[in-house]
Amino acid sequence: MTPIEGLPSLHLPARDIPIPSSVSAEARAILAAPRQAAAAYPPPDDVPAWKAMIAAQDAAVAAMVDSRPVDAAVTVEDAEFDGVPVYVVTPPGATEGRVYLELHGGALILGGGLICRGMAARTAARIGAQVWSVDYRMPPDHPYPTPLKDCVAVYRALLKDHRPEQIVIGGGSAGGNLAAALLLRARDEGLPLPAALVLNTPEVDLTESGDSFQTNLGLDPVLQRSLMPVNLLYAAGHDLTDPYLSPLFGDFTKGFPPTMLTTGTRDLFLSNTVRLHRALRAAGIRADLHVMEAAGHGGFLGMAPEDTELDREIRRFVDAHWAD
Amino acid sequence: MTPIEGLPSLHLPARDIPIPSSVSAEARAILAAPRQAAAAYPPPDDVPAWKAMIAAQDAAVAAMVDSRPVDAAVTVEDAEFDGVPVYVVTPPGATEGRVYLELHGGALILGGGLICRGMAARTAARIGAQVWSVDYRMPPDHPYPTPLKDCVAVYRALLKDHRPEQIVIGGGSAGGNLAAALLLRARDEGLPLPAALVLNTPEVDLTESGDSFQTNLGLDPVLQRSLMPVNLLYAAGHDLTDPYLSPLFGDFTKGFPPTMLTTGTRDLFLSNTVRLHRALRAAGIRADLHVMEAAGHGGFLGMAPEDTELDREIRRFVDAHWAD
Repeated sequence: MTPIEGLPSLHLPARDIPIPSSVSAEARAILAAPRQAAAAYPPPDDVPAWKAMIAAQDAAVAAMVDSRPVDAAVTVEDAEFDGVPVYVVTPPGATEGRVYLELHGGALILGGGLICRGMAARTAARIGAQVWSVDYRMPPDHPYPTPLKDCVAVYRALLKDHRPEQIVIGGGSAGGNLAAALLLRARDEGLPLPAALVLNTPEVDLTESGDSFQTNLGLDPVLQRSLMPVNLLYAAGHDLTDPYLSPLFGDFTKGFPPTMLTTGTRDLFLSNTVRLHRALRAAGIRADLHVMEAAGHGGFLGMAPEDTELDREIRRFVDAHWAD
Repeated sequence: MTPIEGLPSLHLPARDIPIPSSVSAEARAILAAPRQAAAAYPPPDDVPAWKAMIAAQDAAVAAMVDSRPVDAAVTVEDAEFDGVPVYVVTPPGATEGRVYLELHGGALILGGGLICRGMAARTAARIGAQVWSVDYRMPPDHPYPTPLKDCVAVYRALLKDHRPEQIVIGGGSAGGNLAAALLLRARDEGLPLPAALVLNTPEVDLTESGDSFQTNLGLDPVLQRSLMPVNLLYAAGHDLTDPYLSPLFGDFTKGFPPTMLTTGTRDLFLSNTVRLHRALRAAGIRADLHVMEAAGHGGFLGMAPEDTELDREIRRFVDAHWAD
């Protein structure tokens, strides 16, 4: 965040923040877990070092994803549209024709491949609808605009045999960036808009100008530092304030679908989320905001009753907006 | 907040928080204003000291209220219902029969009399409807349950010649406590529910169990410390967890009107607000949450464009719920 010239900073003394009694025991355990110091980001141009960091972090997440059971009745088809790999996941009882187009998270560099596939299966079970999850290409080999183009290509393919009102687009974190950017770009290209959009703790401002990038630093158990080196790797020289990179700065008066946004009071992306909500509302867009008490980025990792309650909220929103 | 036994606190080092670039210049000026250390709370039983503190703080607020112009076309009638003073404020163009029943803020001890009267005139101009603002009695002379009883008495009087769907109830801060408690009590007494409820940064948990009572301490420019001594003065020995004192702990599955809630990311009552929102949603109540970027308690004191934008949101919500 750029300090404002001539305005003083606010000095906060050192503090001990107790684990709150206002959340479930499961959530408290997440908040109380020891935090591991992250390895330093590689230098911008050291591609092998970035790839090694990405591989190590993906391996850790893959182990976590694999450890959670998936409903055996969920089927996964490995598809490809316009050269982009897509996992098409169908849970039992899914309404024919409805598709939840998911853009996975992972800071725009992580979470592809088997992680994307495994997470999509869980989303499908939670949403109760067919999920198409896009395994978009990523940096360092494929920086902006390739990831966004991959997402737009799949949306375009999806529109060939689906009515837009049968489609909901969703994404968390970096996936929320791509979901919102995809909407802006699809709109600008004259494509029809989907029935609705779901953005979970979305990374919609790669400039990190929001207040919570400062105020929640050290409080969020998941995002423990600025992601700026990754944002610059993704942008590859493009302007971070471009709405296709930071959709928070888009013009929503030109049209945008009904949007649900979720975050937590300790989320480093709290400001991202509430600012986008206000921008949408100021433009007259239907937008519903949900903030979880004491939750950092991504809620409580799906392990607390608070997550389950929010999942029900997402399902209600999606079901209310889908056409048959 | 009661620390959880056996769980470690989170240590946060001293930090300098820059004034955010993500808000208007007017909002930045509010955040950058020098903060005055508040006088220590009087001892619980020192009634003259409480009265002196209340008089001094009310005088400061009255000067601020008086300095803001009111539309000359707004009329104010000093009424009384069941012995409780009520300011009935009618702006030009108000729809006959509609009433916004306002319960003023002020930590349950401040903001009565001329401040209540002056604020009501501003609310009426903003909402575009007739406002009834209740000058309920307060501690130290009149602790709980008198303030709440005064509010219920006026709601009961209002119902004599208004249909409930013509009534919206609203309150900020301590007024949000009374508004939500009034709803619970009216419901429990079998009174009909109003069309809607507006709660601005509501003090719905007098136990102060929410996480933001810790995380936003020092960040909120308005509420700079715990209000517990005042809460205990108000409760006068009653259990702070009683839903009539802390409506956050109410059972909303028994019925509650559509509710709009507002807060800010730096608000000491951020947790109050988002927790009540989730409790209402979990009970299936229509509830809309709005969170202002970098705002403390009460937004930016009505002096920033962000406040005006939120006022429009409140007006949209109210207009959508009122019956003719």
